[in-house]
Amino acid sequence: MTETKDDTNPSRRSLIGWGGAGLALGAVAAGGAVAMTRTGDDVEPTAAETGAAVAFHGANQAGIATPVQDRLHFAAFDVDTTDRAEFVQMLKDWTAAARRMTAGKTVGDGAYGGLAEAPPDDTGEALGLKPSRLTLTIGFGPSLFAKFGLADRRPDALVDLPKFAGDALDASRSNGDLCVQACADDPQVAVHAIRNLARIGMGKVSIRWSQLGFGKTSSTTPDAQTPRNLMGFKDGTRNIAGTETDRLKKFVWVGEKDGPEWMVGGSYVVARRIRMHIETWDRTSLQEQEDVFGRDKGEGAPVGKAKERDEPFLKAMKPDAHVRLAHPDANHGSTILRRGYSFTDGTDGLGRLEAGLFFLAYMRDVSNGFIRIQRNLATDALNEYIQHVGSAVFAVPPGVRDKDDWWGRTLFSEEA
Amino acid sequence: MTETKDDTNPSRRSLIGWGGAGLALGAVAAGGAVAMTRTGDDVEPTAAETGAAVAFHGANQAGIATPVQDRLHFAAFDVDTTDRAEFVQMLKDWTAAARRMTAGKTVGDGAYGGLAEAPPDDTGEALGLKPSRLTLTIGFGPSLFAKFGLADRRPDALVDLPKFAGDALDASRSNGDLCVQACADDPQVAVHAIRNLARIGMGKVSIRWSQLGFGKTSSTTPDAQTPRNLMGFKDGTRNIAGTETDRLKKFVWVGEKDGPEWMVGGSYVVARRIRMHIETWDRTSLQEQEDVFGRDKGEGAPVGKAKERDEPFLKAMKPDAHVRLAHPDANHGSTILRRGYSFTDGTDGLGRLEAGLFFLAYMRDVSNGFIRIQRNLATDALNEYIQHVGSAVFAVPPGVRDKDDWWGRTLFSEEA
Ligand code: HEM
Ligand code: HEM
Repeated sequence: MTETKDDTNPSRRSLIGWGGAGLALGAVAAGGAVAMTRTGDDVEPTAAETGAAVAFHGANQAGIATPVQDRLHFAAFDVDTTDRAEFVQMLKDWTAAARRMTAGKTVGDGAYGGLAEAPPDDTGEALGLKPSRLTLTIGFGPSLFAKFGLADRRPDALVDLPKFAGDALDASRSNGDLCVQACADDPQVAVHAIRNLARIGMGKVSIRWSQLGFGKTSSTTPDAQTPRNLMGFKDGTRNIAGTETDRLKKFVWVGEKDGPEWMVGGSYVVARRIRMHIETWDRTSLQEQEDVFGRDKGEGAPVGKAKERDEPFLKAMKPDAHVRLAHPDANHGSTILRRGYSFTDGTDGLGRLEAGLFFLAYMRDVSNGFIRIQRNLATDALNEYIQHVGSAVFAVPPGVRDKDDWWGRTLFSEEA
Repeated sequence: MTETKDDTNPSRRSLIGWGGAGLALGAVAAGGAVAMTRTGDDVEPTAAETGAAVAFHGANQAGIATPVQDRLHFAAFDVDTTDRAEFVQMLKDWTAAARRMTAGKTVGDGAYGGLAEAPPDDTGEALGLKPSRLTLTIGFGPSLFAKFGLADRRPDALVDLPKFAGDALDASRSNGDLCVQACADDPQVAVHAIRNLARIGMGKVSIRWSQLGFGKTSSTTPDAQTPRNLMGFKDGTRNIAGTETDRLKKFVWVGEKDGPEWMVGGSYVVARRIRMHIETWDRTSLQEQEDVFGRDKGEGAPVGKAKERDEPFLKAMKPDAHVRLAHPDANHGSTILRRGYSFTDGTDGLGRLEAGLFFLAYMRDVSNGFIRIQRNLATDALNEYIQHVGSAVFAVPPGVRDKDDWWGRTLFSEEA
């Protein structure tokens, strides 16, 4: 594949764009020695320079089956423009920027060189940082389909979430016309990406809410050490792994038979901001904590078993144990791919940390996935210690195939 | 130095404390193979296991001159108890916990073994994680000295901060009787530490406010790549380095001549939550951005110079350039040790990211340090793009000398 000029220069580590100012021209050393030698448009970054970059192009969007990165910045946007062409152009601009940023490059192509009168086309705080496995994943919310004459393209599977028992949803932290999930090993890279998309979208979209996640709570790489959530338990043990093509096909990717056509290769994401009452939890006995999950705290083994990856024996667990109720056997065989992050957002004004799980799950069918399981969790012993305070659902279109493709093309270009 | 039993077991990677539950005894493998072989109290962690741990004991507290770690969790506490003995006991308990956590160990000593009826004495989410250079630094706020009959022990140098031009302080994000700064390379380790201190302090203190910082904005290690703040500029270039003993002595550590005696080897910390108007900033020309700081954006060189570390020539800068006004030459030779972090706390309800700099600075004298410089910054061109929204100042006592010492001993034990 030949790359456009746009794709080859400059990496975040070279920084041609700001060379025009003052005496610094020719001394742009953000990336050290490497940067010094790379002042042209014709130099491909070496593998070592690119570091760990995740491919942006593919049949599915990255950031779903991709091994979970350490940090998250998730943003939901409202669409402000009513001009469809303008919105489509923004999606194209976003795609170009996402393509560059996930490769560890600055947003702009550095062409404005000496134009000190113009605002820089990259905000700059990720300069010198590695790609850090950044993935950017876009989703379209139910409310978007009420706009731009898209009503009849809304997928049947994209249902509005019902009210669940115990929900205490904050409207200002829920819903949205669009979402972008940024995951990276370096939070500065994830924050930089969302901020630059917001900047490019200025006047067309505005950020409705955003959530920073500091620690992954799920693994999609079964060989790695399973991360622990803020309740201290290993989380993601029986998650769908990014390598399990069969289960991904069955539970995560929208197939040709599912339709609509524009969603094939896509998925649906449910986001739930779940507050944990950690002070109460911390005063609970170890036995009760383990009963709540149906697994032991140290090893993560299911009740009656010795090892984390031993097959759970559900009947040995209390009837209201989280794992017993969330397990496929209790949900008509259904399951979801979890990709959540822990959050701590200061305090709640009552002397308590505002902390919890920003739950993210991907699925092929929302009704049979999240809704079914969450309904079954109505009697979950865990509910005493948590509260769902934010909620959103989005249709996640298929991947961007190549350098000419763009986020949302299948939705916006192939109208019936 | 001989260590107490309390100091030798178990590391976060062994996890004896939870062995009593279910069948998992003897199969506690949170740390993999290593953990399996370490089931006794007599095994010292090897250097490789401990990983990067920062020494907790010393003449000064760690977390000031210590090379800046990647992430921050800063918490301010209100004291709820009026019982001095109870408060002192809490400080001792905190010290014991801090000593263990900074060494990468669980809070408890694992002695409760099979007591499944008791709440675990460590919340567990840092199990299996490395010490991650965790430092915990305690400070005492002006309001603490109004309590426990400490009024005449309040240092003269611990002045209340005056109102500065442009301040828009949120009381719920300001002040506090106590503070703990947790810095670590892994945010989960920093969050775990604050949470466990809050848990131990339950009923005696409560969290007033807390702040997560995701990216360091200052370096105290001049050889390392200077980090960039959210305005995209390198920050910390001319900071006091942790190795500059002379400047540390002159500007950071309280000396014997300064007094009070209980503060010798201590310092003062000023915390300012500074909101950045990043949307406005992002629309500003490169030239204006560089004029604001008096440095170029790419390299970080002062106006008219080629390299980041070239000596600034202040007269070449605009009269209202940040560096020109903050430089020691404009402040009677005074300077401070900056140790701030970038933050992003969701959105402000107006479609804008709530992001900025959580400014932390350490100094020997608050009036001659922060207050002098901040007064001089009244005409700073940067003020158009920032707003100070939170503020606090704390007296940071000297270091904990050894295993028998505790946080605050010099204040609480040596009364005149
Ligand atoms: C704060 C809230 C939650 C916490 C702390 C939590 C924690 C856990 C833990 C520790 C496990 C066992 C390890 C594993 O297999 O991953 C687990 C399993 C699971 N959870 Fe949750 N969970 C939460 C909310 C939810 C929600 C809202 C759903 C979906 C509606 C869900 C669905 C699942 C599923 C499907 C499993 C795997 C069950 C199995 O196949 O064995 N969880 N969760
Ligand atoms: C959001 C607010 C701020 C930003 C973005 C910012 C950014 C910067 C930058 C980019 C530099 C130049 C590089 C360096 O030497 O570190 C600098 C220098 C400096 N800043 Fe700030 N700063 C902010 C607020 C403050 C405040 C509130 C103070 C103290 C009252 C302060 C004190 C200093 C000092 C002492 C220097 C070094 C000057 C020298 O010796 O050359 N800054 N700042």
